[in-house]
Order: sequence, then C-alpha cells, then structure tokens
Amino acid sequence: MRTSRLLLATLKETPADAEVISHKLMLRAGMIRKLAAGLYTWLPLGLRVLRKVETIVREEMDRAGAQEVLMPAVQPAELWQESGRWEDMGAEMLRLKDRHQREFCFGPTHEEVITDLIRNELRSYKQLPANFYQIQTKFRDERRPRFGVMRAREFLMKDAYSFHLDMASLEETYRVMHEAYCRIFDRIGLTYRPVLADTGAIGGSGSHEFHVLADSGEDAIAFSDASDYAANVELAEALAPAQARPAPGAGMATVDTPEQHTIEEVSAFLDVPPGQTLKTLVVRGDSAEAPLVALVLRGDHELNAIKAGKLTAVADPLEFAADADIRAALGCGVGSLGPVGLAIPVIVDRSAAVVADFVCGANVDGKHLTGVNWGRDLPEPAVADIRNVVPGDPSPDGNGTLAIARGIEVGHIFQLGEKYSRAMNATVLDESGQAVVMSMGCYGIGVSRVVAAAIEQNNDERGIIWPQAIAPYQVALLPMNMHKSQRLREAAETLYRELTANGFEVLFDDRRERPGVMFADMELIGIPHRLVLGERGLDSGEIEYKGRRDSESQNIPLDGVMDFLLERLAG
Amino acid sequence: MRTSRLLLATLKETPADAEVISHKLMLRAGMIRKLAAGLYTWLPLGLRVLRKVETIVREEMDRAGAQEVLMPAVQPAELWQESGRWEDMGAEMLRLKDRHQREFCFGPTHEEVITDLIRNELRSYKQLPANFYQIQTKFRDERRPRFGVMRAREFLMKDAYSFHLDMASLEETYRVMHEAYCRIFDRIGLTYRPVLADTGAIGGSGSHEFHVLADSGEDAIAFSDASDYAANVELAEALAPAQARPAPGAGMATVDTPEQHTIEEVSAFLDVPPGQTLKTLVVRGDSAEAPLVALVLRGDHELNAIKAGKLTAVADPLEFAADADIRAALGCGVGSLGPVGLAIPVIVDRSAAVVADFVCGANVDGKHLTGVNWGRDLPEPAVADIRNVVPGDPSPDGNGTLAIARGIEVGHIFQLGEKYSRAMNATVLDESGQAVVMSMGCYGIGVSRVVAAAIEQNNDERGIIWPQAIAPYQVALLPMNMHKSQRLREAAETLYRELTANGFEVLFDDRRERPGVMFADMELIGIPHRLVLGERGLDSGEIEYKGRRDSESQNIPLDGVMDFLLERLAG
Repeated sequence: MRTSRLLLATLKETPADAEVISHKLMLRAGMIRKLAAGLYTWLPLGLRVLRKVETIVREEMDRAGAQEVLMPAVQPAELWQESGRWEDMGAEMLRLKDRHQREFCFGPTHEEVITDLIRNELRSYKQLPANFYQIQTKFRDERRPRFGVMRAREFLMKDAYSFHLDMASLEETYRVMHEAYCRIFDRIGLTYRPVLADTGAIGGSGSHEFHVLADSGEDAIAFSDASDYAANVELAEALAPAQARPAPGAGMATVDTPEQHTIEEVSAFLDVPPGQTLKTLVVRGDSAEAPLVALVLRGDHELNAIKAGKLTAVADPLEFAADADIRAALGCGVGSLGPVGLAIPVIVDRSAAVVADFVCGANVDGKHLTGVNWGRDLPEPAVADIRNVVPGDPSPDGNGTLAIARGIEVGHIFQLGEKYSRAMNATVLDESGQAVVMSMGCYGIGVSRVVAAAIEQNNDERGIIWPQAIAPYQVALLPMNMHKSQRLREAAETLYRELTANGFEVLFDDRRERPGVMFADMELIGIPHRLVLGERGLDSGEIEYKGRRDSESQNIPLDGVMDFLLERLAG
Repeated sequence: MRTSRLLLATLKETPADAEVISHKLMLRAGMIRKLAAGLYTWLPLGLRVLRKVETIVREEMDRAGAQEVLMPAVQPAELWQESGRWEDMGAEMLRLKDRHQREFCFGPTHEEVITDLIRNELRSYKQLPANFYQIQTKFRDERRPRFGVMRAREFLMKDAYSFHLDMASLEETYRVMHEAYCRIFDRIGLTYRPVLADTGAIGGSGSHEFHVLADSGEDAIAFSDASDYAANVELAEALAPAQARPAPGAGMATVDTPEQHTIEEVSAFLDVPPGQTLKTLVVRGDSAEAPLVALVLRGDHELNAIKAGKLTAVADPLEFAADADIRAALGCGVGSLGPVGLAIPVIVDRSAAVVADFVCGANVDGKHLTGVNWGRDLPEPAVADIRNVVPGDPSPDGNGTLAIARGIEVGHIFQLGEKYSRAMNATVLDESGQAVVMSMGCYGIGVSRVVAAAIEQNNDERGIIWPQAIAPYQVALLPMNMHKSQRLREAAETLYRELTANGFEVLFDDRRERPGVMFADMELIGIPHRLVLGERGLDSGEIEYKGRRDSESQNIPLDGVMDFLLERLAG
C-alpha cells in the first residue's frame, strides 16, 4: 500500500477526551475515529489490525472444531422473556421497537438466540457435543463508555456456545476452548494469563478469564512465579501461614492514642510495624440474632469482600455497618475497635490469627491495647481466609510465590451448565429415548478490545509497537526525498514491487514529506520493521533497517534485504 | 469437513411461509433459519457461501483502490437531521433511544456517517479522489419482509462512497466501480446485466443497477441481443419506427360496439389485430388550463408511467383521471374514448402515430370508429415516447433488437454529485485555496441478497446448483456403506485426506446414512462435484463422478481423480 492512497490520518495532538494510552494512540495513529459516545469508526489502518485479530480467532475456532454461524444483531424480546433476562439486563441492554411496535433488543450477547436455534435443530444425543461461534457486532449501552474501543458501546465480539449431553462432555470442550484461547493469544503475540474467575451472577460451575497483562489494566491478577496458577485477586486464596504463632512476649497494656484512628496513624504513633497491628471491621451479619459481625485483619492487609461475603455469618453481598450502629452496639468509634471483649461474633483472618503481641483498638475512644495475644488475653479466634493476597504470598497450588499484575480482560470461558437450556427447555433424546436438558458452555473474546489491549501492552513515547502478527503492515519502506531523485524513485519502486511480490505487507511512504514526518508517522502507527532508502545507500548498495523496538538502526546489503526481513519476521 | 461434525440441517418438507425458490431451498438445505420476521441466522453451510461472496467483493474493491473501513451500525440522529433525511426516511428506518434518551437509528445506509468522517479528515484536493467501503450489517424495517434473505430486514451490504474535486473525477471512479462490479459478478459466476437506472428520488446524475437475470426477478430488464445496452424497462427508450405510415386505405366509419370496452374485446369483435387499434388513456394534466390530457397508444402496447410523467403537459407523478371526471369532460366512458375530435390535449406514442386505418373509440358510449387516419380524419398528432419497450423493438443504441428478461437487483452504483456533501458542508481546499464542495458517488452490493439471487438463477427440482466460486464446498465425497467395510473406510479416509491436503474443499459424508439420503442431501445443498466411492470401485480402481448439472455419472480412474477434478474446477 502506498501512503498516498491511504487515509493516513495521524494527529500531532492527543484529543482531549482520551484517557488511556491505547485510546490516545489509536486516535493519534488514525486507527479509529469517534462517531458518538462509545461508537467508533475503524479507519483503514485500524481495520487491518482488527481483521488480523479476527482471522486468527476464526482459524483457531475452526481448528478446535467449532462451527461458524452468524446470528442477527436484532433479537426479539420473547426469547429474553423466556430466559428471564428481559428484566434482569437493565439499562445496559439497548431495547427498541420495530414499525409494528414489537419489542426487540440490539443483542448484547446471544445465549437466548443460540439456545432457541439449537433446541429446534438438534434432536439426538448423537449430534452432541456441538460448538457454534460467530464473530459479530454487539451493543452494550454502558452508562459511561470510555477508553475508546476498550469499553465501547458497539463492539466486535467472538462468542461461542457449546452443547452437551453431560458435564463430562462440557468439561472436555471447555478444556479444548481453553487451549484454543491460549493458541489465539500466543499467535497474536500478547503476554497474557488465563485466570480463575468468579462465576458470579451468571451462574455455572467453572470459569476462566483471559487477561492481557498491562499496567493500565482494570483487574488485579495474582499469579505464581513457578507454575500456571493465576487468579483474579478477588478469588486467589491466601493460604494459612506455614509458621506457627510465636509465644507471647509481652503483657497486655492499655495506651492512650488520642486522635489516632487509622492503622498508619496508630502504627506511627506507637512505632510498631502495620503488620503488628490488627484492624477490626464491622459488617452486617446474616441473621437477626447476630446483626453485626467483626472481621479482624492484619493492619497491612486488605479485606476481600467476596470471600467475606461467602461466610455463613456475614450478609452477602458484604455491607459495612453504619458508624452510628457500631457506636450504639459497641460504645466506641470505628477507629478504636478491637477483638478483646467484643460482644459480637469475631472472625479473624488466617494471617491475623498467627500474630503475637499485637496492637488493636481497646473499644474505648482514644485508647488502644498493646501486647495482646490470642488464647491468653482473648479466646482462640474463629479463623477464615478473608483478605486479598499480596505479592510474596505462597501460591495456593503449592508452587512458588504470588506476584500481582494488572490485567485487561479480553476473553472469558464459562461452564454455564443448564442455566439457559433448562429455562428454555432445550433437550435432546438420550440413548434410552429420554429427553435430557443439554449442558452448555460459552466462550467469548472481545475482538475489538484485543486491539486496544495489545496497544496498552506494547507502546512507547513514540507510539504503538504492534505485535508482528497483527500489525497493519509488516514493513515500512521510506525513501528519503524520492521526489528529488529519479534514480532513488526507481530503486524504491522496484524494491516495493519485489517485497510485495514476495508476500511482504509493505507500507510504501511515497508522500512528498520531510524524513522527520515520515519517521514519526511510521513509529506512531507502529510498523514493526522499517527500511530507509537514500541516495547514499544506493551508492554503497545498502539500506538502513530498524526494528520498532531497536534502539539503533543498522545498514544491511540491499541485495540481502529479503532474507534479512524473513529472518526478522520469523523471530 | 465431515458431515458428522457439521450442522447439516436439511429438511424434507418446504416450510409453509417460503414463497420464492431461493427462500425454500435455503431453508431446506439448512443454509439459514428464521429468528423473527426478516431476521435470519446463517447456519454453517450458508455462512460459507456468504463469506465467499464477501471475500470476492473485498478483493475486487481493494483491487479497484477502495479503502476498507468499518462504521458503526448505530448512528446518531443529528447527522440525519443535518442531511434532512431524519424525517424523509419514514418507518423503514429503525429508530431507537439510548439510556440517556438520545435518538439514534440502526443505519439503513451510511452516506451521512461517511460524509461526516470525510469532512473532518480530508482537507485538500490533493487527498482526492478517495473511495471508502465497508462490508457491514444494515437494517431496513420493511413493512412486509419476505423472500428470506432476498428482502430481509437485517442484511449484509457492501457500501462504498467516493469523494471528488469535480464531476470528471467522479465519472472516472464511477467507471472503475462499474468495471469492479462486472469483475465481481463474473467471478461469482452469475449471468447479470448492468442496467441504466432511474436516478429517482435520491438525486444525482448517473446510475446503473446490476441485475442477476432470473425468471423470478422483480424488475423487467430490456437488453440488446447485439450490444451491451441494457436498461430497466421503465427507462428504455422505444425508438420511432423506421418505416413511414402507410397511406390511408379505407374510409372512416362509425360502428356499434355494444358492451365492447377493452382492446381485447373490441379487436375480437371487429376482427382486427390489437396493434391496429389505438387506446386512449386520460391522465391529470400539469396546469389548470389543461386539467386532463389524453395519451394514445397502440392497443398492444403498455403505457410507461415514468416516461409519461416527464412530459411537460402531464402531472408528475402520473395520475389517471377519475372515470366520473372523464365522463363529465368528454361525455363517454373510458372504454369508448378516441382521439378524433377530442377537446383536450392529445399526445400520441411514436408507434401509434404510424398506424394507418386504425380503430379507436368514437367518444360515444357503445361506438367505435374504423378506418381512421392521422392527418385526414384528425390532425397530425403531437408525438412522444410514452410506452414500455417490447421484445423485438430496436435497441436504442442502434445495435440489434431488444429482449426482455426479469432481473434481481444485487448492486447499484450512483453518481450522487453534491447532494450530501452540500447539505453537510463537506469541502476541501482546491489548488487556489478556495473551499470546494466535494462531489460524491456511492456504490452498493447486497452481499446477502447475492446468495439468494445465485440460487434463483441456479437450481433444479433436486435443489441448489451453486456456481463453483461460492459453493460451500467444491467436492462431495460419498462412500457407500462405509460402516460395513473397513477397506472402504480406509480408502475413503485416505482420499479425503489427500484431496484436502491438495487444497480441495471437500465435504466428506461420513454419516451412517443410506446412499439415497446422502445423494439427496448433497444435491439439495448444491455441491458442484460429487465423488461416490464403493467396494466395486475399489476392485476396479475406479470412482464415480457426477457434476451437479450432469445428467449421467461417469467412472474415472481412482488414481487420476485429482487431475480430473482440477480440470473440472478450472472449467
């Protein structure tokens, strides 16, 4: 492609409303343009990237035995009423009425449509398992669309749905999809983690998210430095410390801590490390007999609301008690709470339960206790895992220690079980002729989001650094001041023809621009390999090469450029 | 692909609500399924066809220098208000409101969005001409969606929009697109005609429709048997007859024609051919001075309402006068009208003006005139082309005679001129630094409709006959009773592997079905080449081949099957 025939809409200034780097760079590099809030047009360069991601996804889904279909974007309300989600979906589902005032939505997902299709088309267990996917435009009416195509309202998604006679078959296809997802993100060239995920409101029994690691990610991922273990921090288990609790070394004493409420304040005031203090949080209980429950953690740890909410005694979802209720029940402010002599149930985190000689609130305003010890100054505690893991924690699978990284969710695979098939009576006949509700799995990839995530992970101050497999073009060919030299023009045209004929995807910058503008544009749009051809190079039979991540350029023989590029592209 | 792993959803019965053959066959062959009125899911076999059409369209658009983009389906109302079409579009445009009650539509077309994009991105005449296309899902809320994907509400369209500094540049790109469209339909393998079209309400100066010829087509196309001339019958000019009017041969006489009103009745009653009678139609005039105008045609010709509506004296659009108004003004019923002595303006079709000794109404109920002659019994007439062409008419371009065929419109190219760019102030700076409104062209192909049109043109009583380039699979491989013979199974698996490895797209029927079922399914879904492998063939080293259009099968040497297929695929 010649830049003179391409809408190369690079911008010098970053548009004001772009917050994250991928959004800024996609606008600046002319990959996308905003039509309205959360609605983006893909310009030619951006669309090439999107199509490359789409192609890799399609090839791997086909290879994994999934069958491609294409379902309508517009879906009748009746199916959503049948599954019970017409009401549940809320304002995020874009509802509409046709000319006959019949209700429809612009599909945010397709469980209902595929389940309706399959219950009509499949009759026998012999037709199972079956897995259907589509790459299709979806709409989710986000309250606050942002971050460009990372969280757009209209977006391109690959969604797949599998159907099974039993859970064993579902688990097998789930495993196949897990592998296919790994191949997809490997081929795209991203650093990612499959992460154990909460099955949440959607129900079902098993789920992994695929996260592209990037500092700007919205999710925190805990992963082992020595194994495949990875989980959303919300889910990662904090193992009980291996070391036993030390023996008490001090007597319990009450100290004045006027105006010292937070862990930081108390620990600085008393000159003890935060890990030696315990904090007490009061939340709503799950029964009228125990309307309040105290949760105790080490001062340097954070409560994990999902884990705590799953405790029998605690209301789910977790809800903190109001300050006034705490004072009414316990006689002090939240900054002075502690487990000693507390009149409500106390549940203590595993790590907090092995601290000796700790500091905690005295349940009297302005006072704390020091040298407190479980089993001596107060009863041995009820213990549970209620904190977020932190870097250095042992990995729950017993291998290595945990690190924490930020991740961008780009894929999600899910064992749905019978959630939709039961509600919509999707059955097949089994071997004995009995109707059996099918089990289902679903498998999503945010195709357009992958493009943004790739940029979040791969960029520098000069622009995008595309992974080779999804770069809009592999090679940028930049002739220097070609318009002043017929000889250079001919050499550049010849090289462009040869490279293209040999299958290289070349962006040939034939604009009448200064070299600086050409360099800046090609780096901004992130072409992985750059060739610069000048008069001097023609004399010496050399061309200048620079990889997008290289710090220095190098001269290579002009007649060896093809082999050189092949080698670089392979690496 | 193995049929055992494919959703092969063939039906024995034709669903009741399918009217046209393509709709029937797409349902029966398991290519599509209906989700709701005008909304269809593409099943795996159908989607393969759709993607092949899409790929050919994309390749030819790229080759023609158009740049692919992807615009959102959901479009803000503001742009349509700016172009003036928000009101004009009527109920066919699916309107919707987002969660903030802002107005949008599910785009039926993208002139507004692309014009908005381009007015923001292009600044200089140096960036022109530019041509952008997308292959994207559209929605038109047809009052009565029917004929399956032929006239669906949600459908896949290729729409392209070009931008120019002047009309000469627009005409050049229009020519390039015309050629690209011919290549597209040639490659798909359809019999089609580019047809001069009316520019109608959309405005602009030049337009061609591309019609796939099929008896079931909604449009009538007139085309020359000796040149490229083709036009919608609405537009095709009926040339003045080359032969002069014969001299009068009879005297004018009044005859009783009681209860004889239609041309058929009168011509039978008087025993003259319909072409020797003239019919007189009274329509609304365009001025208060002449509120009625008489149009006179040969009895065997049909009025062309579009041509007549363009006459100065006639109201546009054409409107027939009410019977009561005719009787009030002219004193007789419509079945007895004639041009002799008529008190309103008379316009006579070119062919009617050269008839001598003709029969016409006497302007008295129950009476006709015979032996009437222009210039003798009434004045020489005002002559115009106001009829539809008929087969055998001379071609308007002077080459050959016209034939008439039915066509299905699958593409439309259009010189829009400044219709949208002026309304939306889409300008660039010209060489002298002046802002100039760009000229625009637009170029559409109904990608999903092409699939249906291909079937309308290519089918028989056994099912679909896919053109080779868009067949879901090229070759059907049918082993006979493979499950009873290990030897046959191994030979079939080997052949399947070899064919696939050599790039053939093979559908391998590995189901445990009777031969008759396999034959019927493969013919219904229209695979162009069929190979049948049986025990006997293994003994003789032969395999049975039958092309989908062949009347007889033939045996070919098993070891020559690859070359044989290559030859057939090339042919």
